[in-house]
Amino acid sequence: MTSATNDIPTASDIEAAAGRIAPHAIRTPLLTSPVLDARVGGRVFLKAENLQRTGSFKFRGAFNAVAQVAETRPGATIVAASSGNHAQGIAAAAEICGCKAVIVMPADAPEMKLANTRGYGAAVITYDRATEDRVAIANAIREDRDGVFIHPFDNAHVIAGQGTAGREIMEDLAARDVRADSILVCCAGGGLAGGIALAAQAADPDVAVHTVEPAGFDDFARSLQSGQPETNAKTSGSVCDALLVPTPGVRNFAIGKARFSDGLVVTDEEALAAVRYAFETLKLVVEPGGAVALAALLTGKAQARGRTTVAMLSGGNIDAATLARALS
Amino acid sequence: MTSATNDIPTASDIEAAAGRIAPHAIRTPLLTSPVLDARVGGRVFLKAENLQRTGSFKFRGAFNAVAQVAETRPGATIVAASSGNHAQGIAAAAEICGCKAVIVMPADAPEMKLANTRGYGAAVITYDRATEDRVAIANAIREDRDGVFIHPFDNAHVIAGQGTAGREIMEDLAARDVRADSILVCCAGGGLAGGIALAAQAADPDVAVHTVEPAGFDDFARSLQSGQPETNAKTSGSVCDALLVPTPGVRNFAIGKARFSDGLVVTDEEALAAVRYAFETLKLVVEPGGAVALAALLTGKAQARGRTTVAMLSGGNIDAATLARALS
Repeated sequence: MTSATNDIPTASDIEAAAGRIAPHAIRTPLLTSPVLDARVGGRVFLKAENLQRTGSFKFRGAFNAVAQVAETRPGATIVAASSGNHAQGIAAAAEICGCKAVIVMPADAPEMKLANTRGYGAAVITYDRATEDRVAIANAIREDRDGVFIHPFDNAHVIAGQGTAGREIMEDLAARDVRADSILVCCAGGGLAGGIALAAQAADPDVAVHTVEPAGFDDFARSLQSGQPETNAKTSGSVCDALLVPTPGVRNFAIGKARFSDGLVVTDEEALAAVRYAFETLKLVVEPGGAVALAALLTGKAQARGRTTVAMLSGGNIDAATLARALS
Repeated sequence: MTSATNDIPTASDIEAAAGRIAPHAIRTPLLTSPVLDARVGGRVFLKAENLQRTGSFKFRGAFNAVAQVAETRPGATIVAASSGNHAQGIAAAAEICGCKAVIVMPADAPEMKLANTRGYGAAVITYDRATEDRVAIANAIREDRDGVFIHPFDNAHVIAGQGTAGREIMEDLAARDVRADSILVCCAGGGLAGGIALAAQAADPDVAVHTVEPAGFDDFARSLQSGQPETNAKTSGSVCDALLVPTPGVRNFAIGKARFSDGLVVTDEEALAAVRYAFETLKLVVEPGGAVALAALLTGKAQARGRTTVAMLSGGNIDAATLARALS
């Protein structure tokens, strides 16, 4: 994990990341829907990171990390382990920065994520999510190829990069003269939630940040409750393929303990209903793992009535079969 | 057609429409995609009107027209004829304004459009697109119920309402300090293209406005070429169900003759490929008729290399079967 540091990024790290990604990332819109507002009984803003380059926020952190590697080691081999969205982010960032990418991905990752990652020119090595340790495999590759490992969430550059989404949220809310009560963030290892909390609470210390996880993979919610890192019993078995991390990242949990409010949990069926709502009503393509914050709103699990809530939407890398399941 | 006037809307009519719709319509984002820019070899902005309330730009014109009826005749019955997007726009606007809505729709309209229109509380009367005249049916209903007919495109209030999308485009381009060379607009009767040309050329007289139509339904392109209104040979048979109008509107053609550049034409397969591109790469849900401007870019039929182009995306009311066809 040579590119990671033990630091937790500062607001100025996030500002530097924003400058670094600006020429390549999309400044995604903060969307509104009167129909969703009426349903929720509150004011909702959707940060549409499914519209981000590579279809998820992961491009932000990946590019921020890869660009810094490329500065000191041009053409370096970047090694990553990812269920698919960090994979695509790293592969695309490596392609832009002139680096090579080798990505360790679960064999049961959605076909689209595997194909897209290869499409950005990365070499993909698959593993069995139930029996093999992706970080160990990635580290072996890193040593073998003298590469640089970029962790999907427990890495200060990655967290700073994801934080740029939070910075944009606060800028766009300020431009509309709006104060948000809370931000709901889809969560696996806590890279996005951590980065957003750092950026958002730098601008408004009172804004609450809630993680949203799939049932059975609510390690972050349980860790926040117990005060120590908890681990999930299962390693696979949710339609939210992007959110199946076993335990919070070290840096991410440190940020979360200091900054997150209660974690929320939604079922697979609730996530799929949110995918359907996004498709039919919002006209947005969102994968199940990227729809859990919206699911928390639609189910009423998030306290949004009479309040102003920002929900992250990301990613949008859903295959036709999963979409068909959501629409049926 | 009691609500229509022989006037062509002015820039101040469009400004008034913008104020009228602001509390209810969505100010849709002007999206960018580095991947699309690279593919096209130019700079592209997508006005994502598929994200508009009711899933298409039609809500703008419908609300602008219905709100003015409701001012003078509270609770009036609004009568409309539409393949589905104007239908949903009128139905939703009538519901908001406390009016009744009766909509004449083709029996072969997508199930989703029929269901959504009924969902907004409108009464739906179906007709046979090949053998019956929807305007005649609507006029009979109007007389019978002392209603107000709102034409889907040949109506100054509707054109002014659609023009608000063009006004937003020009404001958002100016905020980014960008000048567009051309705007590509999906076109049936010419309400959106007309409104956008009026608004955009008020801000920049040199911006070119191109209509984009499906092959076989290119009456506007042929009319612009011949200088007189041309009619399509067929009345149905394209996957672009929203764009099957037989001939340009009178007001719309008058605007077009003065303001439009050459009309572009894409095939059904090209429109479906654009639906797929929007889904897979942009993560946006767009129906075939709403994707024709994007299709003109992807096929190279629009001259976009080295230039700055705005393409309208709208609507997003696609059913699962048509999406599956596009993705296969």
